[in-house]
Amino acid sequence: MSMDRLITKILETGNPTVAGLDPKLSYVPGFIREESVKKYGKTLEAAADALLTFNKALIDELCDIVPAVKPQCAYYEMYGWQGVKALYETMAYAREKGMYVITDGKRNDIGTTMEAYAIGHLGETDVFGETQYGFLGDCLTVNGYLGTDGIAPLLKVCEACDKGIFVLVKTSNPSSGELQDRMIGGQKVYEVMGGMCETWGAEQIGKYGYSSVGAVVGATYPEQLRELREKMPHTFFLVPGYGAQGGGAKDVSYAFDQNGLGAIVNSSRGIMCAYQKEGCDERDFAKAARREAIRMKEDITSVIPKIAWNK
Amino acid sequence: MSMDRLITKILETGNPTVAGLDPKLSYVPGFIREESVKKYGKTLEAAADALLTFNKALIDELCDIVPAVKPQCAYYEMYGWQGVKALYETMAYAREKGMYVITDGKRNDIGTTMEAYAIGHLGETDVFGETQYGFLGDCLTVNGYLGTDGIAPLLKVCEACDKGIFVLVKTSNPSSGELQDRMIGGQKVYEVMGGMCETWGAEQIGKYGYSSVGAVVGATYPEQLRELREKMPHTFFLVPGYGAQGGGAKDVSYAFDQNGLGAIVNSSRGIMCAYQKEGCDERDFAKAARREAIRMKEDITSVIPKIAWNK
Repeated sequence: MSMDRLITKILETGNPTVAGLDPKLSYVPGFIREESVKKYGKTLEAAADALLTFNKALIDELCDIVPAVKPQCAYYEMYGWQGVKALYETMAYAREKGMYVITDGKRNDIGTTMEAYAIGHLGETDVFGETQYGFLGDCLTVNGYLGTDGIAPLLKVCEACDKGIFVLVKTSNPSSGELQDRMIGGQKVYEVMGGMCETWGAEQIGKYGYSSVGAVVGATYPEQLRELREKMPHTFFLVPGYGAQGGGAKDVSYAFDQNGLGAIVNSSRGIMCAYQKEGCDERDFAKAARREAIRMKEDITSVIPKIAWNK
Repeated sequence: MSMDRLITKILETGNPTVAGLDPKLSYVPGFIREESVKKYGKTLEAAADALLTFNKALIDELCDIVPAVKPQCAYYEMYGWQGVKALYETMAYAREKGMYVITDGKRNDIGTTMEAYAIGHLGETDVFGETQYGFLGDCLTVNGYLGTDGIAPLLKVCEACDKGIFVLVKTSNPSSGELQDRMIGGQKVYEVMGGMCETWGAEQIGKYGYSSVGAVVGATYPEQLRELREKMPHTFFLVPGYGAQGGGAKDVSYAFDQNGLGAIVNSSRGIMCAYQKEGCDERDFAKAARREAIRMKEDITSVIPKIAWNK
């Protein structure tokens, strides 16, 4: 079970957090950007080269203390197929360093089209009878607006290839309530979506009690986090919104169960841009990311039960 | 206004349909696949080369009679960054041939991340002070589950760069009702989403009365199409589900307004795989696609008012 692999990594590192790799060029230190421009000119190739150099240095400093990375597809697609190549290479490097890879793509479609996404991001692509890999995610974020037809093809690939998904349930943004908080009968839309996650995951529950169907629930709505943790006992949470978006350790603590499992908390800019916030030498950016990752780990583990950790 | 550009192309060709380019390798004629394998071996490069060769031949045969193409990102991502490069090259070729490009990515996220998608797919990417283009869509399909925060960054780029979006409202798949048909107060979820489309588009209405915010509404739900056409007078519809999924000309006719505008109907497999259905020589695949595109055009235009066409 893919979620078992993630939880095992969390227990090994004692760290229920994930480093988001959302590299805009303006986050990348100037000396890296200059080297890439020297090599490739002011091109998309140069941009992609700079992102990859930045990501690899971050992965080197984080791989022994952070269990997972979460590259956000948007920031690679912004730089064209060259950026998407850097996404692939980032995943390959993180995997080589033993990290679990959560592809943040929020993909969604139906039938054979969703199957193509599932195969490309989590499965094995048949190319003229040979097995190839489009991308290298262990887990993919997805949007469930289209219903079971959009999720079933993923479940097949998750089972066959030991992978997982995180379905958007309650997102961290201010306007998430426009649809997600509306009432359907006695339930809010996000509760309906949460219930569907429990159903979709019911056949694939791992040894820690969590299924391969996780949910995205934002740190910026702690009350909802608490409710959903109770109502979704088999659904592992990916929690965005810590740090830059305003969620604190106390807020995210509601995402965890009484053993201190059940969730992984993301920080992207907080870790990637720690060197800018610290105001240290930009050449020290990776060490600054490491310092912030350790601070975040201590911040969050200080407020959750650590029963599972001590086993 | 981007939707004006699309409607103008529809009127020029007298054809309110779009050719979906969703090329699985198994759709590509054997002689093309063999040539690609000869060049690149059984690799993702070979797969991407085969897709591109297939797409270019289809575009050559369709560009004077079909106004638009709709490449589906999933089928390119399945073949890794090499496939995504073929996606870019397909878009560039379609644009060169004067076709309008609808990128079917169903992208969704919030804030700066959605901005990155908007820039990458519809806008201009700033690379070390130079303007570059990640991808070359005129329009992008998106998922509105996250609310206004996920749409606002797109609206800015649509206005600045003369582009458009299609928001998923009522999808064509059997299980679309699991969430989309549930009642919120007196309205169904898809009606709420439809209402949001009208609001999001209100500031960007073009000369034909349609805004740069369109909606995806499936041909497989003709009753809902009829309702939504009435309730969403400024929202242009992208209609999947014709042909392979079971929607007929009569079904899709409800998507059009009394002038015969207001919608574009997609066919993917029907056009791409016409040579398989016809059972003709596979080397005739592009001509077979053209024959099917003409048949589809006649099928649909025979049941809608053509008032706008005759002006």
